[in-house]
Amino acid sequence: MRKEEIPQILDGTHPDHGRGVAVAHQTLIMTSALAISLETVPDLSGRAQIILSVFETIVLFLFLAEYLLRLYCARHPLRYALSFWGIVDLLACLPAIAMMHPEWAVLRTIRLLRLIRMFKLLHTNRALDRMQTALRHSWGELGVFAFLCVLMIYIAGVGIYIFEHDAQPEEFSSIPVSLWWAVVSFTTVGYGDIYPITAGGRIFTTCILFIGLGVIAVPTAIITSALIDTDRETRDNPTEDPNSSNTGEK
Amino acid sequence: MRKEEIPQILDGTHPDHGRGVAVAHQTLIMTSALAISLETVPDLSGRAQIILSVFETIVLFLFLAEYLLRLYCARHPLRYALSFWGIVDLLACLPAIAMMHPEWAVLRTIRLLRLIRMFKLLHTNRALDRMQTALRHSWGELGVFAFLCVLMIYIAGVGIYIFEHDAQPEEFSSIPVSLWWAVVSFTTVGYGDIYPITAGGRIFTTCILFIGLGVIAVPTAIITSALIDTDRETRDNPTEDPNSSNTGEK
Amino acid sequence: MRKEEIPQILDGTHPDHGRGVAVAHQTLIMTSALAISLETVPDLSGRAQIILSVFETIVLFLFLAEYLLRLYCARHPLRYALSFWGIVDLLACLPAIAMMHPEWAVLRTIRLLRLIRMFKLLHTNRALDRMQTALRHSWGELGVFAFLCVLMIYIAGVGIYIFEHDAQPEEFSSIPVSLWWAVVSFTTVGYGDIYPITAGGRIFTTCILFIGLGVIAVPTAIITSALIDTDRETRDNPTEDPNSSNTGEK
Amino acid sequence: MRKEEIPQILDGTHPDHGRGVAVAHQTLIMTSALAISLETVPDLSGRAQIILSVFETIVLFLFLAEYLLRLYCARHPLRYALSFWGIVDLLACLPAIAMMHPEWAVLRTIRLLRLIRMFKLLHTNRALDRMQTALRHSWGELGVFAFLCVLMIYIAGVGIYIFEHDAQPEEFSSIPVSLWWAVVSFTTVGYGDIYPITAGGRIFTTCILFIGLGVIAVPTAIITSALIDTDRETRDNPTEDPNSSNTGEK
Repeated sequence: MRKEEIPQILDGTHPDHGRGVAVAHQTLIMTSALAISLETVPDLSGRAQIILSVFETIVLFLFLAEYLLRLYCARHPLRYALSFWGIVDLLACLPAIAMMHPEWAVLRTIRLLRLIRMFKLLHTNRALDRMQTALRHSWGELGVFAFLCVLMIYIAGVGIYIFEHDAQPEEFSSIPVSLWWAVVSFTTVGYGDIYPITAGGRIFTTCILFIGLGVIAVPTAIITSALIDTDRETRDNPTEDPNSSNTGEK
Repeated sequence: MRKEEIPQILDGTHPDHGRGVAVAHQTLIMTSALAISLETVPDLSGRAQIILSVFETIVLFLFLAEYLLRLYCARHPLRYALSFWGIVDLLACLPAIAMMHPEWAVLRTIRLLRLIRMFKLLHTNRALDRMQTALRHSWGELGVFAFLCVLMIYIAGVGIYIFEHDAQPEEFSSIPVSLWWAVVSFTTVGYGDIYPITAGGRIFTTCILFIGLGVIAVPTAIITSALIDTDRETRDNPTEDPNSSNTGEK
Repeated sequence: MRKEEIPQILDGTHPDHGRGVAVAHQTLIMTSALAISLETVPDLSGRAQIILSVFETIVLFLFLAEYLLRLYCARHPLRYALSFWGIVDLLACLPAIAMMHPEWAVLRTIRLLRLIRMFKLLHTNRALDRMQTALRHSWGELGVFAFLCVLMIYIAGVGIYIFEHDAQPEEFSSIPVSLWWAVVSFTTVGYGDIYPITAGGRIFTTCILFIGLGVIAVPTAIITSALIDTDRETRDNPTEDPNSSNTGEK
Repeated sequence: MRKEEIPQILDGTHPDHGRGVAVAHQTLIMTSALAISLETVPDLSGRAQIILSVFETIVLFLFLAEYLLRLYCARHPLRYALSFWGIVDLLACLPAIAMMHPEWAVLRTIRLLRLIRMFKLLHTNRALDRMQTALRHSWGELGVFAFLCVLMIYIAGVGIYIFEHDAQPEEFSSIPVSLWWAVVSFTTVGYGDIYPITAGGRIFTTCILFIGLGVIAVPTAIITSALIDTDRETRDNPTEDPNSSNTGEK
């Protein structure tokens, strides 16, 4: 095995070796992300805190070892060190960030950026190719509907402010708060922290919800039709690269 | 550059000039909409209030300048002044509306109407053409399902009133309030301000929710199939105008 | 105009006369439904109550007149009087039901059954034909998924009861209450009246929600594909009746 | 009728006899599941408790009788007793489990496992075949999107923790709790137990919700397009087994 092949094995893109090392690597990153989230639990037992600290230290050393290994194996070490991935790898193994201040502990989540490497594995993935082609074809339509959504949320926020501000000056205190209500309602999350109570506000909400849910449902239709379109083209021109194919009707 | 071309540049429909001016114009309208919403925040610092006032004054002068420019450039100034756009443009720059009464400040959102101009930019947009063709084909189906939705909400509202009124006379105080509950439940928003607590009311809600969510899910299916249908036609008859095409099976 | 044509005009199925009378008739039924719901509002002003009573009386007389007219015009009056529609029409105009007891006022909503007549208008509607054909093709699939949904809700309800009963004996007091929680969660309504608070209950909810939402999303996919399938068949065999067409792959 | 045919009749797979026995059998299991859930209701009347106990005893005896019958009819009784179904059938009729401890009563839901037998009936079901083929084709895509969902929920949970922890140390007490908030928000359930109150947290939620809902909407599109794809193939190659068919573009 040559020196140049080690990063390929770490990334799981080596032609001969399987993806075992890469999968273990990604699992480590994800377990470490889980550990970071568990550390914030307020009333952890002393033993759990010790286990998490030990695990954290091991992860930091492994990441440091990986960084040095990648630096050693790189054809142009300096170029790697200054590249995007080099900086991410360096940040991920800097224990200082975690030790300086408990508030900064969250910054350790920067190591999640390393998960993006995982997308390299997906590069040869037919699924992502199809989705990308489909999304590229329907970009214009999705943009138009994103704009319509924003406009509708603004109208809903201003409208509900006019209807509800006098009845609930505490809840619908300003238009930005009403916009928050509009977002929570249109996405159908509906936390229930603010809701209209006047008859006018409720009728307005009913109208705006039915129109708005229709507008929000359209993107699903657009993506579905784009996916089917992409399938049809790939089927009709099987030898052609689907990414460079022409839709013909443009 | 001739006088007649200036409105085209403002609207972004001029053939030679890019859409730079139009984009800046639309951005100004949207920023101004944001400023209006921020002004309603109750406990703004004095400095923020001053900045917003200054910005507001600048916007009003810019809109006034634009109105006068459009009036000057129009071939028939009076016809423009009395047209829909002329009135909208005039209302948008009338500072009196904003100054007369704090309650009326909201009326300044009338300037958002000017965003509708933006749709002029989209007129040549393939995305909107497809959506319009698809919607026109499925208008009848969507109408039938809108009617079914209204009927189902009425039945749900009356039903829950019968089940819950005795147990919760405060919450389910009348059928209109129960209809509000039905709307909030069918759209799956579920604020949690009113909900059934009796066994009968809950079983009724379960049945009505499963049927109702099915009915509400159908429009997505209709729009998707119409979009795919439109694509197929455009593909089969590429030289034909998709807006005047015939679906053949009618 | 012959006697026999009057019911046709009332139903809007007369070949020569337009649907004007039928639309007015349906509007009257819907306005009356609205009036019934408004009557239940607790603190109505005296004047509003009088207007609603007068309107109600007028509606009852109109319905009575219509019933007598239909009885007079029917070829076999007795057969009409004993038919489903005859009984519905009779019930709708029986003022006694509304007068006997305020609680029974709700029974007046039985007149909503008359709205079902409206579906007669839709009989020649291409939209409903397509939907019916599509639903008939996908009946088996929808049944399988309805069964899966019920099973999943039962599992979710029993599971959350095991996890949460000890922590919240008041909220998750029994499995039927937990089933109510499961229904409210799977439909993504989420009123917030009961929700898990233990770590185990929340992890269980996360798992079950992601699986469950997938299962609930499938019916939309089934209906969409059935609609597209129906379109294709109608297109390929335009002379054939779409309701009797054969899908070929069965 | 030979001895070997009895299990077939019980399962509803016997060629000559209808599914009557199997349907009654499944109904018994489901009624028994309902009875188990009703038993947990705290304030049951004495009479209802007696009815449920009697029903429970009858069910247990019927299940015991069925187990012995299956044991007697099996070609290899020992092999059946040690098989998966044999153990499930044994557990379902062990009254001891239900009697030992009230907490363990829930274990009786193990008899629900027997409902899985019902899937045997569905084996010849075209609906499930189509869904299985469609799911097999779109497995890779669904996996990619499941991963994207998990990543997005993690990012949302960590982000909201940074924004809201200082403002609401009680609600957003740790990252795991914030992850619970992220799950409840992305699935649009929105119980309302925890929600952001700071401006930063709300803007962050708005952004993440719109991206996240898009990601969560994609699987529906994938399943729909896979179902349509499967239909097309089955149509083009009607003599071929749909499960072994080749998609051609891979």
